[in-house]
Amino acid sequence: MKTGLVGLGLAGSSLGQGSSSAESLDGAAAAEDRQAEKTRVQRFNMSGFAAPPLAKVRVAILGTGQRGPAYIHNLRNIEGVEIKALCDIRPEKLHQAKARLAGTSHDPDLYTGEEDWKKICERDDIDLVVVTTPWYMHTKMSVHAMNHGKHVASEVPAAGTIDECWQLVETAERTRRHLMMMENYCYLPFQLLTLNMARQGVFGDVFHADCAYNTSKMGNNFSKNLYWNMWWLRQYAARRGNLYPTHGLGPVSTIMNINRGDKFEYLVSVDSDDFMMRAHARELAAKDDFFKPFAEETYRGCMSVTTIRTTMGRTITV
Amino acid sequence: MKTGLVGLGLAGSSLGQGSSSAESLDGAAAAEDRQAEKTRVQRFNMSGFAAPPLAKVRVAILGTGQRGPAYIHNLRNIEGVEIKALCDIRPEKLHQAKARLAGTSHDPDLYTGEEDWKKICERDDIDLVVVTTPWYMHTKMSVHAMNHGKHVASEVPAAGTIDECWQLVETAERTRRHLMMMENYCYLPFQLLTLNMARQGVFGDVFHADCAYNTSKMGNNFSKNLYWNMWWLRQYAARRGNLYPTHGLGPVSTIMNINRGDKFEYLVSVDSDDFMMRAHARELAAKDDFFKPFAEETYRGCMSVTTIRTTMGRTITV
Repeated sequence: MKTGLVGLGLAGSSLGQGSSSAESLDGAAAAEDRQAEKTRVQRFNMSGFAAPPLAKVRVAILGTGQRGPAYIHNLRNIEGVEIKALCDIRPEKLHQAKARLAGTSHDPDLYTGEEDWKKICERDDIDLVVVTTPWYMHTKMSVHAMNHGKHVASEVPAAGTIDECWQLVETAERTRRHLMMMENYCYLPFQLLTLNMARQGVFGDVFHADCAYNTSKMGNNFSKNLYWNMWWLRQYAARRGNLYPTHGLGPVSTIMNINRGDKFEYLVSVDSDDFMMRAHARELAAKDDFFKPFAEETYRGCMSVTTIRTTMGRTITV
Repeated sequence: MKTGLVGLGLAGSSLGQGSSSAESLDGAAAAEDRQAEKTRVQRFNMSGFAAPPLAKVRVAILGTGQRGPAYIHNLRNIEGVEIKALCDIRPEKLHQAKARLAGTSHDPDLYTGEEDWKKICERDDIDLVVVTTPWYMHTKMSVHAMNHGKHVASEVPAAGTIDECWQLVETAERTRRHLMMMENYCYLPFQLLTLNMARQGVFGDVFHADCAYNTSKMGNNFSKNLYWNMWWLRQYAARRGNLYPTHGLGPVSTIMNINRGDKFEYLVSVDSDDFMMRAHARELAAKDDFFKPFAEETYRGCMSVTTIRTTMGRTITV
């Protein structure tokens, strides 16, 4: 059985020919990947892969706005971890992040230029790159890091298109680098308790699961200083469907052994209209010109329901 | 705004040309309905319709197996109701049902032949026909009753196809008879409480609703004597999708003003495979030849998820 992200299982034969793929890869590697794109043949099973252990893990963190500080907080006291580099386009965020390391043995180099993340990936003295930048940067940064020999821990979502999924899978298979999507909900106490109960058979055969991340982003999305360049709000204007499914889908996929015996076969997704964001943007724009450009956008719906069917004929709603 | 079952809103221009429609209607009425089928033009708004009040309501009940006795129990002590006729293909069920009326003023005539339900519909001294037969008989009985001047109370589902929905709508509009689908969950205390809260604005604007009727039919479906000719189990073998959506959908549709300001626009439905019924049929067949024919059937999935989008851009999952 095929495993790994191949398990997304959507027909890929005509996908992945976009220029973004070629741009983010280097020379021979890119040529090899373009060849692979023609067939989408699995060359290696990353699901069973374990890279050789490292006595010391030298870490770089790309993005120190929202999620980066949480990584710093969690990594700084772990034995064998050395935080070598931090990168953010907002110097004030970068310096606030570095301040969290005062009094520790960590003394990371700071990078703040638009393209500095590439310089970090190209350093020889880094083992793991943590990608906590805006969503749409995740894949290109992860691919570049793997192509330069780094393991990657990417914030969710790791990819935003099928083409990007293939880039991640094929780059990982070729470079034999770990790419872990940091879906923290898989590791929360309630979710691990549920997983344990499922594995002990408390729920019998699990042939259906409902999951969700019911949350309102009305506050955060319209905050002027929280997300760089209002990128999250812009995503809500640029995309449709379920932008943020992994908090529910991660734990449920583990319980249902997705990519470990079953896999997603197809999905259907239905959105409601937006009944909140545009109205709120207009309210804000009436008082503050900053929000004027956002008042004319069309936003994704308030609710998005996705139903997935697996190869074994089981179903999941997100 | 169009209302009533027209609100199902699925493209109807090429539907409803089947022979079953013509068979169940009479002469001129059938010709008129066939003409209407070509356009699906609404001729009358049954949503606002109120038939003249009746001092006495003379009732016939078609089907006295599972649901019929509940109607007898509820109707027998209501002032102004006279139970005039009972019909069932199983004489023992019919006599058990009549026994529930011992000591009351009701003395219904009993009918038990295959086509006796038509004779009942054709009597002049009956005002309301209650249809509690197997699902697939509901529409033809309801249409025949309305065509003979009777109001109809039909058990759920009132119809099993789009064509049958149109038959019901157009027959009701032409004959000006009430056709009420007896979705009792709309009138249960919790559901009425929730409706009241919604109408008082407790939930704000309702732009999405989840509803369900999570139930296992494993016991009832495989009972030899519960459903005549194992009809319910046969439905599970003959159909796919959500066979029994109205317990959840009825109350939610009331809350969301479906057909009273909004209407269903389209739906998508995804089934899991069957992981239980065929296996159970095989277990039973190994011990009892009666179940042998059912062991080779393919049954609808254990789970069925339907997502509906309304014309106003709201969503419902069932």
